[in-house]
Amino acid sequence: MTEHGRLSLNSATTKRWSLREAVEGCLRAGIPAIAPWRDRVHEAGLEEAAAIIRAAGLEVSSLCRGGFLTAADAEGRDAALADNQAAILEASTLGTRDLYLVVGGLPLGTKDVVAARARVGDRLAELAPFAGDHGVRLLLEPLHPMYAADRAVVSTLGQALDMAAPFDPDDVAVAIDTFHVWWDPELAEQIARAGREGRLASYQVCDFNLPIAADALLSRGMMGDGVIDFPTITGWVRDAGYDGYIEVEIFNQEIWDTDGDKTLAVMKERYEELVLPYA
Amino acid sequence: MTEHGRLSLNSATTKRWSLREAVEGCLRAGIPAIAPWRDRVHEAGLEEAAAIIRAAGLEVSSLCRGGFLTAADAEGRDAALADNQAAILEASTLGTRDLYLVVGGLPLGTKDVVAARARVGDRLAELAPFAGDHGVRLLLEPLHPMYAADRAVVSTLGQALDMAAPFDPDDVAVAIDTFHVWWDPELAEQIARAGREGRLASYQVCDFNLPIAADALLSRGMMGDGVIDFPTITGWVRDAGYDGYIEVEIFNQEIWDTDGDKTLAVMKERYEELVLPYA
Repeated sequence: MTEHGRLSLNSATTKRWSLREAVEGCLRAGIPAIAPWRDRVHEAGLEEAAAIIRAAGLEVSSLCRGGFLTAADAEGRDAALADNQAAILEASTLGTRDLYLVVGGLPLGTKDVVAARARVGDRLAELAPFAGDHGVRLLLEPLHPMYAADRAVVSTLGQALDMAAPFDPDDVAVAIDTFHVWWDPELAEQIARAGREGRLASYQVCDFNLPIAADALLSRGMMGDGVIDFPTITGWVRDAGYDGYIEVEIFNQEIWDTDGDKTLAVMKERYEELVLPYA
Repeated sequence: MTEHGRLSLNSATTKRWSLREAVEGCLRAGIPAIAPWRDRVHEAGLEEAAAIIRAAGLEVSSLCRGGFLTAADAEGRDAALADNQAAILEASTLGTRDLYLVVGGLPLGTKDVVAARARVGDRLAELAPFAGDHGVRLLLEPLHPMYAADRAVVSTLGQALDMAAPFDPDDVAVAIDTFHVWWDPELAEQIARAGREGRLASYQVCDFNLPIAADALLSRGMMGDGVIDFPTITGWVRDAGYDGYIEVEIFNQEIWDTDGDKTLAVMKERYEELVLPYA
């Protein structure tokens, strides 16, 4: 295993690359794993996507993403269950155990965040057995509270762990993305708890840039460009027993406008400097 | 006491008004209290500001704001202590018990949020006796996590209460601003705790608008225009025993561009519809 043996490219970081281009980029850069987004998988075709990745000898560290489970009406609920079942099958076909869930925000026109959170629990109960049957873990990803209304009503790691608690850790676990959780006063404690509870399933690194981008989704930055203390958080993740892949997932217009190979070179450099020594 | 007997205008909502204009606006609108920002007080002169408000028969529900306590160097620490002591004296002169603290973010070039939080605790210990001697409560205001790096490393109500715990509730208490805390999965529980611990000292209402404004500070909205469930949160605040003023503090370019009297009219309307019945 090389020094990049735990590094994984999330396909959103090199948004302009097709899945095949991203796979080839990883090979050129010596990056051993990839975390594809479903749009890139669908574009290539599921079986073809799996074949491309397998033929390259890359591992799939996770699939991004299912979720959007907060619909209040039967139609929305059914559509969400169907889409997530499809995502579970895709993860299984791609050969990854881990499916990220961005759980969804407030359904349009509603403001009851307590009820939306309860519905996520209900949908998880409906999906977990199906996931387990297919050898897939559902990963609850807490998103930054600035996205609580429109992306994910799961906002802290502690909340994600509480929500996962009723389920087998092999079926429902949690993901940590530094961008989303760095600010959390309980972060050290909840990362340790995730480890103890056997639910610390994935670790994504990405910086929090200031000022917040005009499109708030694009405030994600290359490690080192923002405010996040990667050595400290990575040390907490290590101490919690995490030894899996470390994904780099960045939505950032400037990075998207950069040549993919250059992005991967910078990503490796920053990973070696700010993450790897503490992982 | 009128139906607006608990409503207070935070002077930031009508940013273009001087303190005197804001006081006159409150009188025309039948709003019995005002929460001035210090810049408006300084502009009028402290004694004159106090006289203007007293002559109008308005109450001062709080003074905004002290804080910025996270400096890591001796010079920054001394400057912060001096500025906060000045703010405490201003609050006392204006006749309010409550001084809001926005505790400050990461000092430039640093990324250690754990250490910055510890320094806030140290500075509070230095300021609390001085505040107590002048009959002023320091209000820890948790700010939305999107401001954790550049405005306030106190990000949740639970954290604010933990930080206040070593101090007498008459000296250090907490403030709730719906914009900052609405997303918190522990909000109901922590509001109840704030009440039990005698530290629920101030309640500000302001909506969370989407999409997030290009200048993220200006995403604050008029109650009803965003995603926040005011009846539910206001009910939690009421059930925790809060019976003080309810301040409206909105930073929003469109509202700032509106005639102040119109803003106050809409504010009263929304307050009567979304807040007062649950308060």
